[in-house]
Amino acid sequence: MELSGDCESTTEKSEVTGNGDTETQENVAQSWLRGATFREILGSDVSHKSLFVLLSGVNDEQGVFLMNKSAFSEDANDINTILRSAELIEIMKNDIYGSYNAVIPSHLNMVKSQLIYPANEKIVAKYRQEEKFIVNETAEDYRTITVKYIENIEKYQLEIQCEAERILFEDPDPYNGFILAPDIKWDGVSLENLYVLAMIHRRGVRSIRDLTANDLPLLENVRSRALCAIREKYGARPDQIRAYFHYQPSFYHLHVHFVSLKYDAPASSTLAAVLLDDVINNLKIAPDYYRRATLSFTRKNSDKLLQMFREAGRCEA
Amino acid sequence: MELSGDCESTTEKSEVTGNGDTETQENVAQSWLRGATFREILGSDVSHKSLFVLLSGVNDEQGVFLMNKSAFSEDANDINTILRSAELIEIMKNDIYGSYNAVIPSHLNMVKSQLIYPANEKIVAKYRQEEKFIVNETAEDYRTITVKYIENIEKYQLEIQCEAERILFEDPDPYNGFILAPDIKWDGVSLENLYVLAMIHRRGVRSIRDLTANDLPLLENVRSRALCAIREKYGARPDQIRAYFHYQPSFYHLHVHFVSLKYDAPASSTLAAVLLDDVINNLKIAPDYYRRATLSFTRKNSDKLLQMFREAGRCEA
Repeated sequence: MELSGDCESTTEKSEVTGNGDTETQENVAQSWLRGATFREILGSDVSHKSLFVLLSGVNDEQGVFLMNKSAFSEDANDINTILRSAELIEIMKNDIYGSYNAVIPSHLNMVKSQLIYPANEKIVAKYRQEEKFIVNETAEDYRTITVKYIENIEKYQLEIQCEAERILFEDPDPYNGFILAPDIKWDGVSLENLYVLAMIHRRGVRSIRDLTANDLPLLENVRSRALCAIREKYGARPDQIRAYFHYQPSFYHLHVHFVSLKYDAPASSTLAAVLLDDVINNLKIAPDYYRRATLSFTRKNSDKLLQMFREAGRCEA
Repeated sequence: MELSGDCESTTEKSEVTGNGDTETQENVAQSWLRGATFREILGSDVSHKSLFVLLSGVNDEQGVFLMNKSAFSEDANDINTILRSAELIEIMKNDIYGSYNAVIPSHLNMVKSQLIYPANEKIVAKYRQEEKFIVNETAEDYRTITVKYIENIEKYQLEIQCEAERILFEDPDPYNGFILAPDIKWDGVSLENLYVLAMIHRRGVRSIRDLTANDLPLLENVRSRALCAIREKYGARPDQIRAYFHYQPSFYHLHVHFVSLKYDAPASSTLAAVLLDDVINNLKIAPDYYRRATLSFTRKNSDKLLQMFREAGRCEA
């Protein structure tokens, strides 16, 4: 998984600084960075090539520095520039195969970074990577632990709102209908990372745990009409769209993620995502499947739900 | 997913060139690269930051150039070097948040690369990324299509061999026993990407499709003893190990992957991996679950099994 926090939060507060003092601001940030000392690695992802570090500045205020290697440019001129100028440092050579460390021009090898300073404890905590643990939730655990957790957070949950102008498709039926809209993570253009959400109209279906065979018409309706609408609107083939629920979901009103097969989306892997096709299949095999199943998912160490499972003696402390 | 092929194949053929002519070889490779022309992007992965390109050299021979951005060093001195020398180019500044393109020292920003030349068509095909498609295999499809596919490849399949010296644990029972050994992809040291395989002793269980509730003792035995052995040997907690089958598997003798939760392993996502816990749960809910289930997986466009599904009219052409 890519470390979260890449390029988010930058528009959260106040207005963007005007052009007039950009250069000064830039120098200020760079000066702050040069005077800062490395304190701690908050997070690291070797497969996505990112590193989040905690710094302390000259006046002892804290800062968070987030670094992500940039993806390669796919522009032919840029690639030819790399060929012309790459310096190869040999690691191994064997017949037709050679391994090298290559130095390429810095403008084609930028690090996308964010510097946040001064950073309070809440910000530092947000970027501190936490260990995750697997929870195996039995049907009984769901009823005695998870439902309490959900009821508690629901009190604080905002009404789900959808921006009407972004809706791609709507089936207005109140029982089996839904709306389809681009996810906020998607730019709405690049098909490589197409990401669309279907939100059902019916209230009270919190997650896949609430589904029975009675809901098959709802699920099959969402599957066929959403895939159809996505094909019509974007030309994407149904057999190149991965459709799944999250379990646990981030909010407890049933919704389905429709994501390009080419996109390695956050939380699309096992222990986080459950395929819509699998849910339909499971309910056909056993109408009360989700009332009986043990479902597995991961939670961060400081997570409230994990804490509740641990307190109940259902997870190792 | 990281593009496959990173740092593999380099030891496949002949002996490593001696130290004596390293410098010459290096210059030869670099000269070849400088004289080469970009032809085609064979593969690209923006989330793992890699790019595979096809080149043609001055004498028209083909070459394949594989580039992967390196992960950040986590060494404190290296991080302090970045702080001292990073040049920040501002993208956006907003209150305490700033986004920048950063130029960092090239020795901390290497591109891990492989150059393969001259490359024949087979090598080029190996590194050419292919589109994938989802197959929904019903139980009937399995019997009429997939079994034929398996029987055909089994004729060519080598006897499964295990290097005795690498075995971590063995339960010798011929019916419910198994051997546990590090996967060849794992160095056996770094717990972050721990990867261990359990191979059952019993013959004739080709994949999860062959499992029924009668096999629960086998599956529960593998789960508990393998997790125990991994904890004993490496100190890894059972709730930080992801245990799964591949479906379709790469070879048809039942085996289970035990992988660190921290490691985003190839083919560990939905549509490729099926959790051992889910398989056990499914067989408890319906003893003949895998004789009735529709199972979904992806195949590359040129794949033989996908072709068979298409010929049978079970997948869109």
